[in-house]
Amino acid sequence: MAEKRKIEVCFSPAMYHSFHDDNSIIVIVDILRATTAMCTAFMNGAKSLIPVSTLEEAKEYKSKGYLVAAERDGIVCDFADFGNSPYNFQREIVEGKTIVYSTTNGTQAINMAKKAYKILVGSFLNISALASYITYENKDVIIFCSGWKDRFSLEDTLFAGALADKLLNNYNKFYTICDSAIAAIDLWSIARKDIMAYIEKAAQRHRLKQKKLDNVLEYCFSPDQTELIPYLSGEKLVVNFYCENNNNLSSKNIKIKL
Amino acid sequence: MAEKRKIEVCFSPAMYHSFHDDNSIIVIVDILRATTAMCTAFMNGAKSLIPVSTLEEAKEYKSKGYLVAAERDGIVCDFADFGNSPYNFQREIVEGKTIVYSTTNGTQAINMAKKAYKILVGSFLNISALASYITYENKDVIIFCSGWKDRFSLEDTLFAGALADKLLNNYNKFYTICDSAIAAIDLWSIARKDIMAYIEKAAQRHRLKQKKLDNVLEYCFSPDQTELIPYLSGEKLVVNFYCENNNNLSSKNIKIKL
Repeated sequence: MAEKRKIEVCFSPAMYHSFHDDNSIIVIVDILRATTAMCTAFMNGAKSLIPVSTLEEAKEYKSKGYLVAAERDGIVCDFADFGNSPYNFQREIVEGKTIVYSTTNGTQAINMAKKAYKILVGSFLNISALASYITYENKDVIIFCSGWKDRFSLEDTLFAGALADKLLNNYNKFYTICDSAIAAIDLWSIARKDIMAYIEKAAQRHRLKQKKLDNVLEYCFSPDQTELIPYLSGEKLVVNFYCENNNNLSSKNIKIKL
Repeated sequence: MAEKRKIEVCFSPAMYHSFHDDNSIIVIVDILRATTAMCTAFMNGAKSLIPVSTLEEAKEYKSKGYLVAAERDGIVCDFADFGNSPYNFQREIVEGKTIVYSTTNGTQAINMAKKAYKILVGSFLNISALASYITYENKDVIIFCSGWKDRFSLEDTLFAGALADKLLNNYNKFYTICDSAIAAIDLWSIARKDIMAYIEKAAQRHRLKQKKLDNVLEYCFSPDQTELIPYLSGEKLVVNFYCENNNNLSSKNIKIKL
């Protein structure tokens, strides 16, 4: 049997230097709302997605004719087509399009991980597909929480715990000795009993509420809505493979589009 | 009634810039083993303690005649008087002395927090006294986990959760909206049922075991062995006040030595 593969969880871009491993799969996580919105865009047929961290970059792309999702403090930027909510990425708007998505924390994480073996976009929407695909690849995995302004965030950590738990329990191919992975799994074991009640504790949940942007909350914690796994190719996120949500994974279940 | 005071938990020196507040009390935490050893030194009558991060600094102090605690990879440095275990700080050795303590993670945290209103040394040994004293001071509090090489560490987080829990439940003067404080409290709620079993999960516990340095484990999780609270004064840690371990705190219970 092959050697078991390591699972680690990084809680913040500020800590990533102590995890950095170019030979690993990195799963980027920003549950409220960037990585959930990105998965949604691909579910609705988007062709590709360009994550940018500054409004200047977003504006520049807009002037070149791209569709741009950008908001600051809950208000859609005047130059943008719509805001950052997953609900904006409707099929009639995004199908076949390349969309620019402005997100500070998520883009920072993606940029830091750029040299990794593969960068995947993770959310509850594609969690089981993600677990299957990660298992199929023979690599260690770092679940990279975007956090909030370099701080730890509960919602990203719960997802990290859920994914790590799934990998450890459904497949006999992984191990962890990472304190943050253990903490994430234990927090998930508390939260999973009633995730919507638990998430009331999270600061970002209250930030969104204050801005009346919290109608997405339940959606952002809905598991297994898609088998698509967005991944970074050059500067763009694309999705040209997917794998079946199947715990008895064999290579025949991995369906490579393209 | 006075405004309630904020509790925050910082999981790593790498994240401290997002917490930094010069008007707060900072509690430095490095349970295995620096802050536990520091509390022990004062319990046994040490006069003061100089935390240093490099062996070069430790060596320089040694050449000036100081008592020096320094080890690397579990081996006492040849120039040092003893290693970093709390058990080395026996009364017959440390009483009345100034001791240099070499610790990478703990010293890094202390240096980063240097401009804060007050820097206190926290461990399970002085946890209730610490809670009383923090309550007595009218300031916000940041519990600053030293972690391990900029990573999250379970043992520091459990202490942070225990202290935050104590402050929130025993006194009606605090609140938290900090995701990492909430996570620490929830992890502590799991671990407290059997702390010695839980700590088997922690990476640092296994590092110490490999080096045969884990005989201190139970001691490091023994609550309320002292009412002394070491704090930073200039470059030195000293201890010239203490407060009674008393949940019904009133100012008359605060005993200022000096």
